[in-house]
Amino acid sequence: MNAEIIAVGTELLMGQIVNTNAQYISSRLPEVGVNVYFHSVVGDNRKRLIDCLEISLSRSDVVIMTGGLGPTQDDLTKETVAEILGKKLVLHEESLEKIESYFKKLNRTMSDNNIKQAYLPEGCIVIRNDNGTAPGCIIESGKKVVIMLPGPPSEMIPMFENTVIPYFMEKEKSMLVSKHLRIIGIGESALEERLMDLIKNQTNPTIAPYAKEGEVTLRVTANCTNREEGERIIAPVVEEIQKRLGQMVYTLEDKPLYQVVGEMLIEKNITVALAESCTGGLIAGQLTNVPGISQVFERGVVSYSNKAKMECLGVNPDTLHKYGAVSRETAVEMARGIRKAAGTDIGVSVTGIAGPGGGTAEKPVGLVYIALADKDNVECKELRLAGSRAKIRNITVLNSLDMIRRYVLSLQSH
Amino acid sequence: MNAEIIAVGTELLMGQIVNTNAQYISSRLPEVGVNVYFHSVVGDNRKRLIDCLEISLSRSDVVIMTGGLGPTQDDLTKETVAEILGKKLVLHEESLEKIESYFKKLNRTMSDNNIKQAYLPEGCIVIRNDNGTAPGCIIESGKKVVIMLPGPPSEMIPMFENTVIPYFMEKEKSMLVSKHLRIIGIGESALEERLMDLIKNQTNPTIAPYAKEGEVTLRVTANCTNREEGERIIAPVVEEIQKRLGQMVYTLEDKPLYQVVGEMLIEKNITVALAESCTGGLIAGQLTNVPGISQVFERGVVSYSNKAKMECLGVNPDTLHKYGAVSRETAVEMARGIRKAAGTDIGVSVTGIAGPGGGTAEKPVGLVYIALADKDNVECKELRLAGSRAKIRNITVLNSLDMIRRYVLSLQSH
Repeated sequence: MNAEIIAVGTELLMGQIVNTNAQYISSRLPEVGVNVYFHSVVGDNRKRLIDCLEISLSRSDVVIMTGGLGPTQDDLTKETVAEILGKKLVLHEESLEKIESYFKKLNRTMSDNNIKQAYLPEGCIVIRNDNGTAPGCIIESGKKVVIMLPGPPSEMIPMFENTVIPYFMEKEKSMLVSKHLRIIGIGESALEERLMDLIKNQTNPTIAPYAKEGEVTLRVTANCTNREEGERIIAPVVEEIQKRLGQMVYTLEDKPLYQVVGEMLIEKNITVALAESCTGGLIAGQLTNVPGISQVFERGVVSYSNKAKMECLGVNPDTLHKYGAVSRETAVEMARGIRKAAGTDIGVSVTGIAGPGGGTAEKPVGLVYIALADKDNVECKELRLAGSRAKIRNITVLNSLDMIRRYVLSLQSH
Repeated sequence: MNAEIIAVGTELLMGQIVNTNAQYISSRLPEVGVNVYFHSVVGDNRKRLIDCLEISLSRSDVVIMTGGLGPTQDDLTKETVAEILGKKLVLHEESLEKIESYFKKLNRTMSDNNIKQAYLPEGCIVIRNDNGTAPGCIIESGKKVVIMLPGPPSEMIPMFENTVIPYFMEKEKSMLVSKHLRIIGIGESALEERLMDLIKNQTNPTIAPYAKEGEVTLRVTANCTNREEGERIIAPVVEEIQKRLGQMVYTLEDKPLYQVVGEMLIEKNITVALAESCTGGLIAGQLTNVPGISQVFERGVVSYSNKAKMECLGVNPDTLHKYGAVSRETAVEMARGIRKAAGTDIGVSVTGIAGPGGGTAEKPVGLVYIALADKDNVECKELRLAGSRAKIRNITVLNSLDMIRRYVLSLQSH
């Protein structure tokens, strides 16, 4: 079955909120055999909502609508759907009682227009709302299914999970199972070239790359009748990709890089300290988002001034004078210095020019050095990045985390 | 003119990313007289993209497309639009040179399929991309306008601002002018109550509040024929709101709080150093996103361990022992200590329990202390927050920045 999600609400078209409901529903439906082919957003306008619905019903088996079930004048999803499908709206006593008791519980008086929310299309499957006043519903009309859910995610999500997912699980036989390989250290087109033969000959599973700033995700998707079968179809393809890409694949679990790195450090009990200049604390900020990181993260220093580099990291004034704050030599001394000061297994440092100002012909904006010191060695990497200040900083964070990851992997292989 | 935004990308239909591009574009278009009536999302599939485009061209004056301009096989937006509008794709030399120099700068070899990105529909207005390889374009076809932009927001947003907005400003006569008041220190409903009479009687300008984590934005929008007229309509309403809310309004320029605070510090030349525990470098990370901040930001210390608190900040071991790392006393010593070590005008510290673990009955998850020390005084604020680790950290960052802002404002009033 193929589905389409229609979000109803002028606030979406004004850009006041993002359509996270469509994302949520889309991420869940393939697992119950429903493929999402379109999202639409339409305002609280009867004529345009009718147009939109008619298009959806002509091209999709399932239409899932979110929003427009509220008590006010401009909430018109239910009325419009009932009209198009030729269904009457009838009072649903159980829903009315729920709404009444909801207001009682909050100690608020129920306004007359809340009664409107208890009217539902005749013959529908009612979806209980335990977190708000608007019930949802599933309408089967010929071969088409129309589902209506309220807009607030805190109401929509439990209703979707408790009623809509079980509804499709019962109905459907075929489903999609996906695996996401997150990859760093190669661009999208170079990656595609390396996997061209696999991608070109894809049928089941399919392979699709997509790029985010500084990294690429490969989605491998199998069409199957149950999860076990899906995993069996995916496994050899994932194995082949991993063989070709090696350590560039940093997770198969669709987790961000900082989480993968933080969990590795905790698991291996490798203590770390950071000395950041151009990233200004962002590496520390990401790593410390991982619960339990305090076991291994000792300190970070954002050494923006030369004074801080000398005092907190023990960088030699001569080094700063001779090579400058943005240099391989300074990065190396920063990494060694923070490791020594903190007494950790490794010290990691970053120094660079994030722009937009501060670049020269010799040291342009985007020049970055990353260094990692342990008790025996120090390695240093030079990056030459392009783009905005935010982009240069973000890509530097990813590269620094990746350097830690590769270091930990190299320990394991000894 | 009415517009429709089509996002192209299977990753959106799989729920891997949210369509923030549609939100961004929707929030900006009304200001140049373009009303957004629909959003659509379609996958990387030629037939469905054609269907979607035909519907859009039949009902909308302007179609703005994001995504599908990449170098790979499944990027087919440009080819499909050119086909539908009957335009040839021709090599755009300038774009090719830009792509080549982009790869040169990154020290990477350009793959053959990147050349595809330099082909654009004949007769279009080319939109330069300074942050990536895919140029965009504006095509005028009869009375319709089709605009194509790349998917990554870091590329799309500057291209939209620098070329698409000016394009419509020249084309349109009636427009919306908005002012965004960004507000911290009051919730959305309390704010609405204070402004109820203004909001209820709104016609032109209109007033709309919307909440983000830890802050609220009020958008005041005038319908007018030119910017001067719009500003004349808005001014008295904004003045009245400012009178009622005072220092809670932190900017009229729709800038994030860290930027307002960073620019204040630079302008007043107030030097600052940070000692962060539970925020783990996020305050430093935000402040150092402001270009030029190195003039006033001396250093930050992410003092995750007690050792770091003692060594880098001079916190007394007895204080840690007696009151604990998360206490008013420790926060005060951290702020004084970082100020002294860095030799700055002010020192700001944060210590708290971000969760999910680490809370006790006496010191629950969400307990946070923020302190600010100058040469004479130190002030300390206790917060009791709820929510996820990420939310607690984010609201702590906002509160810390706001404490700095109010400190600087208090200096000016002397």
